[in-house]
Amino acid sequence: MFILGNKLKLSVFGSSHGKYVGGSIDGLPAGISIDYDYSRKWLDRRKPAQSEITTQRKEDDDVEIIAGIHNGYTDGSPLVFLTKNRDYIDRHYDDLYYNPRPGHADLTMYYKYGDYRNFEGGGFFSGRMTLPLVFAGSIAMRMLRDMNITVVSYIKKSMDIVYNNDDDFDEDYPYNFSTRIPDKYLDERLHALIMKTIKEGDSLGAVIRTRINNVPPGIGEPFFDSIESNISKAMFSIPAVKGIAFGAGFNLSNMKGSESNDEFYYDEKDKRIKTRTNNAGGILGGISNGMPIEFDVVVKPASSIRIKQKTVNLKTLDVSEIIVKGRHDPFIAFRAVPVVQCMSAFIILDFILEEQHEKH
Amino acid sequence: MFILGNKLKLSVFGSSHGKYVGGSIDGLPAGISIDYDYSRKWLDRRKPAQSEITTQRKEDDDVEIIAGIHNGYTDGSPLVFLTKNRDYIDRHYDDLYYNPRPGHADLTMYYKYGDYRNFEGGGFFSGRMTLPLVFAGSIAMRMLRDMNITVVSYIKKSMDIVYNNDDDFDEDYPYNFSTRIPDKYLDERLHALIMKTIKEGDSLGAVIRTRINNVPPGIGEPFFDSIESNISKAMFSIPAVKGIAFGAGFNLSNMKGSESNDEFYYDEKDKRIKTRTNNAGGILGGISNGMPIEFDVVVKPASSIRIKQKTVNLKTLDVSEIIVKGRHDPFIAFRAVPVVQCMSAFIILDFILEEQHEKH
Amino acid sequence: MFILGNKLKLSVFGSSHGKYVGGSIDGLPAGISIDYDYSRKWLDRRKPAQSEITTQRKEDDDVEIIAGIHNGYTDGSPLVFLTKNRDYIDRHYDDLYYNPRPGHADLTMYYKYGDYRNFEGGGFFSGRMTLPLVFAGSIAMRMLRDMNITVVSYIKKSMDIVYNNDDDFDEDYPYNFSTRIPDKYLDERLHALIMKTIKEGDSLGAVIRTRINNVPPGIGEPFFDSIESNISKAMFSIPAVKGIAFGAGFNLSNMKGSESNDEFYYDEKDKRIKTRTNNAGGILGGISNGMPIEFDVVVKPASSIRIKQKTVNLKTLDVSEIIVKGRHDPFIAFRAVPVVQCMSAFIILDFILEEQHEKH
Amino acid sequence: MFILGNKLKLSVFGSSHGKYVGGSIDGLPAGISIDYDYSRKWLDRRKPAQSEITTQRKEDDDVEIIAGIHNGYTDGSPLVFLTKNRDYIDRHYDDLYYNPRPGHADLTMYYKYGDYRNFEGGGFFSGRMTLPLVFAGSIAMRMLRDMNITVVSYIKKSMDIVYNNDDDFDEDYPYNFSTRIPDKYLDERLHALIMKTIKEGDSLGAVIRTRINNVPPGIGEPFFDSIESNISKAMFSIPAVKGIAFGAGFNLSNMKGSESNDEFYYDEKDKRIKTRTNNAGGILGGISNGMPIEFDVVVKPASSIRIKQKTVNLKTLDVSEIIVKGRHDPFIAFRAVPVVQCMSAFIILDFILEEQHEKH
Repeated sequence: MFILGNKLKLSVFGSSHGKYVGGSIDGLPAGISIDYDYSRKWLDRRKPAQSEITTQRKEDDDVEIIAGIHNGYTDGSPLVFLTKNRDYIDRHYDDLYYNPRPGHADLTMYYKYGDYRNFEGGGFFSGRMTLPLVFAGSIAMRMLRDMNITVVSYIKKSMDIVYNNDDDFDEDYPYNFSTRIPDKYLDERLHALIMKTIKEGDSLGAVIRTRINNVPPGIGEPFFDSIESNISKAMFSIPAVKGIAFGAGFNLSNMKGSESNDEFYYDEKDKRIKTRTNNAGGILGGISNGMPIEFDVVVKPASSIRIKQKTVNLKTLDVSEIIVKGRHDPFIAFRAVPVVQCMSAFIILDFILEEQHEKH
Repeated sequence: MFILGNKLKLSVFGSSHGKYVGGSIDGLPAGISIDYDYSRKWLDRRKPAQSEITTQRKEDDDVEIIAGIHNGYTDGSPLVFLTKNRDYIDRHYDDLYYNPRPGHADLTMYYKYGDYRNFEGGGFFSGRMTLPLVFAGSIAMRMLRDMNITVVSYIKKSMDIVYNNDDDFDEDYPYNFSTRIPDKYLDERLHALIMKTIKEGDSLGAVIRTRINNVPPGIGEPFFDSIESNISKAMFSIPAVKGIAFGAGFNLSNMKGSESNDEFYYDEKDKRIKTRTNNAGGILGGISNGMPIEFDVVVKPASSIRIKQKTVNLKTLDVSEIIVKGRHDPFIAFRAVPVVQCMSAFIILDFILEEQHEKH
Repeated sequence: MFILGNKLKLSVFGSSHGKYVGGSIDGLPAGISIDYDYSRKWLDRRKPAQSEITTQRKEDDDVEIIAGIHNGYTDGSPLVFLTKNRDYIDRHYDDLYYNPRPGHADLTMYYKYGDYRNFEGGGFFSGRMTLPLVFAGSIAMRMLRDMNITVVSYIKKSMDIVYNNDDDFDEDYPYNFSTRIPDKYLDERLHALIMKTIKEGDSLGAVIRTRINNVPPGIGEPFFDSIESNISKAMFSIPAVKGIAFGAGFNLSNMKGSESNDEFYYDEKDKRIKTRTNNAGGILGGISNGMPIEFDVVVKPASSIRIKQKTVNLKTLDVSEIIVKGRHDPFIAFRAVPVVQCMSAFIILDFILEEQHEKH
Repeated sequence: MFILGNKLKLSVFGSSHGKYVGGSIDGLPAGISIDYDYSRKWLDRRKPAQSEITTQRKEDDDVEIIAGIHNGYTDGSPLVFLTKNRDYIDRHYDDLYYNPRPGHADLTMYYKYGDYRNFEGGGFFSGRMTLPLVFAGSIAMRMLRDMNITVVSYIKKSMDIVYNNDDDFDEDYPYNFSTRIPDKYLDERLHALIMKTIKEGDSLGAVIRTRINNVPPGIGEPFFDSIESNISKAMFSIPAVKGIAFGAGFNLSNMKGSESNDEFYYDEKDKRIKTRTNNAGGILGGISNGMPIEFDVVVKPASSIRIKQKTVNLKTLDVSEIIVKGRHDPFIAFRAVPVVQCMSAFIILDFILEEQHEKH
């Protein structure tokens, strides 16, 4: 099912080379004012052709809300929104129809949908489907801001370039850096690496870090709607995401309990219990503990590269060789940053709306 | 909601120190024969007090099916099963009621449920809740075997002890090793490390690797029921799991597309397309590609340790110190292996049942 | 799926001649005190062998809550409850296995489940499954009472005996009458009719009227969770219910808009808008308008009768004749009254819990 | 939630005076060819301004599929479709904003959504929302035809004009009659009655009968997805529907078991078991028995009438008088016929897709 969420039901539709991509959100309360400028900002950060390190496909990415709004406010019915596709070039895909690109969903969409596969431009497997994810998530992120909850995502690592410093900055800060790694020196190094990779016709993977501040303690459930469960379910719907880890993550396998347990203390200023470390990523037993929710996702290198690769022809079953043409992203993680950020917001808002009725 | 799955709906209930733990599975087809001996084997592998490296809490863990079976076969109604709790000792928990243990859900259950929290023994946050997960999953795993699909899980890593070799062995093989790391030499080292950790009153984390063989190509969906999405949602319901990564996982941030893309070839013997590497973990675009589905989960060190820790008293808000008594697991990953394995089977079966009606 | 509800998920399990029938409710807030005496009263009203006009099958119908309760209060995890089956006599059913009883689900369970059908006593198609419906609903009804919402159900009609008077009485009142039609004279007539029907070995149908008082205005939705939609979905899960109509119901086809429209007026005493008539049954556009929610359900005559009937043998496909032995209800609507009442309460509570988070 | 169905998820969106109404269907298999002409026929039968007995609001009701289609076939992603609204006249509604029309959802939308209510033309409570219901259902009905399953709906009754004859005609037959009551003489009478009612400024209710032929035996479930449950849930989402009854319906309260039980016999020609009567409406225990599924719904008289009515002003709480202007339907059941028919098809298709994976 193309439906995500509990109290909020997000649906996405359309495809890369169809007329539209779009989405709907069912379950928003009536009376929410939509902040188009705010959403526009996040759409622009996901947009192709923003800079020299993204694909050059040009899209306006204008989103039109076609239902669910009345006099500028949500009306309690599904909020539905559309974006027209414009600049697609079908001919890039002709010779790929029977020659699945390694790392792409070409082969699996063939297995699943056979001759009815929506193939061009990756169909509904395309990164273009993240546009409605960003729009929906940006509305959630805007609503969370009114509750003083903020979400920050940024590039933490690619190859040997790693940002391991403090990340108590605001949601816009990482976007000041050309590669979205929040450090001037690392940014320069990463930018140079990406430019070199473009020249080689290759692509790079990365780790994206997310931090969600001021999530109220007590949201989430042990079974089966833990915060980790629902965030991970959403993250793995973002193309190219292959892993997620909360708090200290995989490094927990290098730790003893005496190290990994986060010591509690009472913060006199904020009048609440905090932990000195945050190895748990703000979540204990699936439920928020009041510390920032922190997690990493790993984004694989974009599978579309300009280097000759071997594949199997689906009709002849012979080996064939392909070079993927078209306009692609050498560092797809760059554009994935706002997608991860917005989808995180969507899931947290879903939890908060769910929570509102559970109070005894 | 305590409900997981699409075609199959798994529910768990009960609590550590209540009368029962149990579960139900709705959506099983009628006519499935239950293989109690097979399920028993997996329950035994999850059981406490199996060996010197597990908690010494003694439980028979006998599961009784109380509904959904007729003349030895499933009847198409919910399969409901119960296990009586026996050997619990309440007094261990008295002084913890207002002194939340670091790393535990004590604090978050207080936030969520207040004075109504089911506290003793961790209530329904307890590892004891994995008993119904194993039983349900063992039924799924048995059904998958009849389709030639097998699931293998084992300890891959703890601290600097890492198994990185071939894992094309059967589902029972890792259980021949005292620590479930499938190598004699590593097993000895890990066993010694665990024994040392027990003496220190501390605990260890680990990485568990899972490999699912012969999953038919074409199951899963891009949005929002990708294989990664649904497996991860299930995994994060297992207490102590904090991360999951498919295929090459977080190492994808160290790779270029030309390395991470899995080259296709046609296997003449098996008469199907395969990949030479499996960095994608058997999943492209959220859908199985016919290669083994492979993923790691990281299990944090058990938070219950016999070392003095600081916490905050919930009534006085003063700092207090606690030592967690009771019987706990120094290496909880050991018992998590069959839980991960069984839950993986449950999700794959759910996908396969879902798939059956989608054929055009 | 054996799961009903949105915020509350009710599941039922077991079967007529299995060891147990039971159910679970997921989604109850923590901190609800269970009023066993209250539930007991409703179970007794559903019980077989209450009087000479019910089946003589004897069951204690003791319900044990086995999970979801901690120190006498709900703990936020699924509330699971069981009732042991005791007094069943298998031999009554032997010769029916291949001779489906007219009006029963015998034939359709054969179509659906084949040789795996849970047949004895109607399996999970049995009226015995209404026991967990009543228990779950009685908890809801008790919670609604604390919100001043009350539910009243009673026999309105059977054959030419019709109660058409005022029904502003309390939830217990109809149970003062031997047939649950709330009028002394009609009760005597109906009782005599039932006794005559028993002698003939036949059975009777009836209409049950329900009135739900003080439902807050504004609950429900136009699509697809209208109050009518969700109440009807629940009602049609009660065996033998074949129709439902709200307000003036089918009589609306005899009316003009100028008659059927309920005129609004402002009630100075209650300080709210009311309607002079209630042809809409308290629901406009799927949403409560503050008037009592009123509806009728029709219950067909019990299909088990002691009169010879023709059927088809499933093996030979020859015509055969059967007389249904065993202990059956000549006037099943009598025992359906509390089932309808309790299930109505369950759905209204589900709406109210759902509503709590929708407020802007 | 604005989402209906199990395997198929239907969503509707938009509003009477917004830019669009539309819908989406998630869960259609890939490879379904869309028969636009067939859908067009059903849209035309729902359309306003078809004849002198419908509202004169003019709409083209052109439906555009904007997603989920690839080369003319469904592609396995959500099928999304839109219709532009054209001919609406806002001024008719100005003076109604604080003067709720009796029988309308004006008051309940005020209670639920307050100042954010989407009011004009009934917003998303409008009969215009049945356009996407018809389009979605017409696709289902076309798919069912390929399985030899047909759905027939027609006017059975209004006031004292009742059609009680054989209804073994095809899906188009009732549309040969000006009022959709399938009898020349009754049609003339009903037409005259409607014309008289128009002159009086009043409106009429009716009963619509539906018959679904060749539903395979064995679909549906006892809890909680009985055929009756799911059809009724869908029917009560159609504005103005207030009751539903299967088979002999409310008349079952006038029958004894010996009359209402449908006798089984073996039909040598069709090689299957049938019943001589169909008082059960083709459903036993919630499951199809192979006989036609038959049910009645009652449609209340349209609440918009040109006769002066009393209401309460929402601001002043004073009594006020209104005459509803605008263009309305004197006999809304006429246009409801194809809506009931198409939604019935949708639910049956949902059951059939669900069933496909349940086979043992």
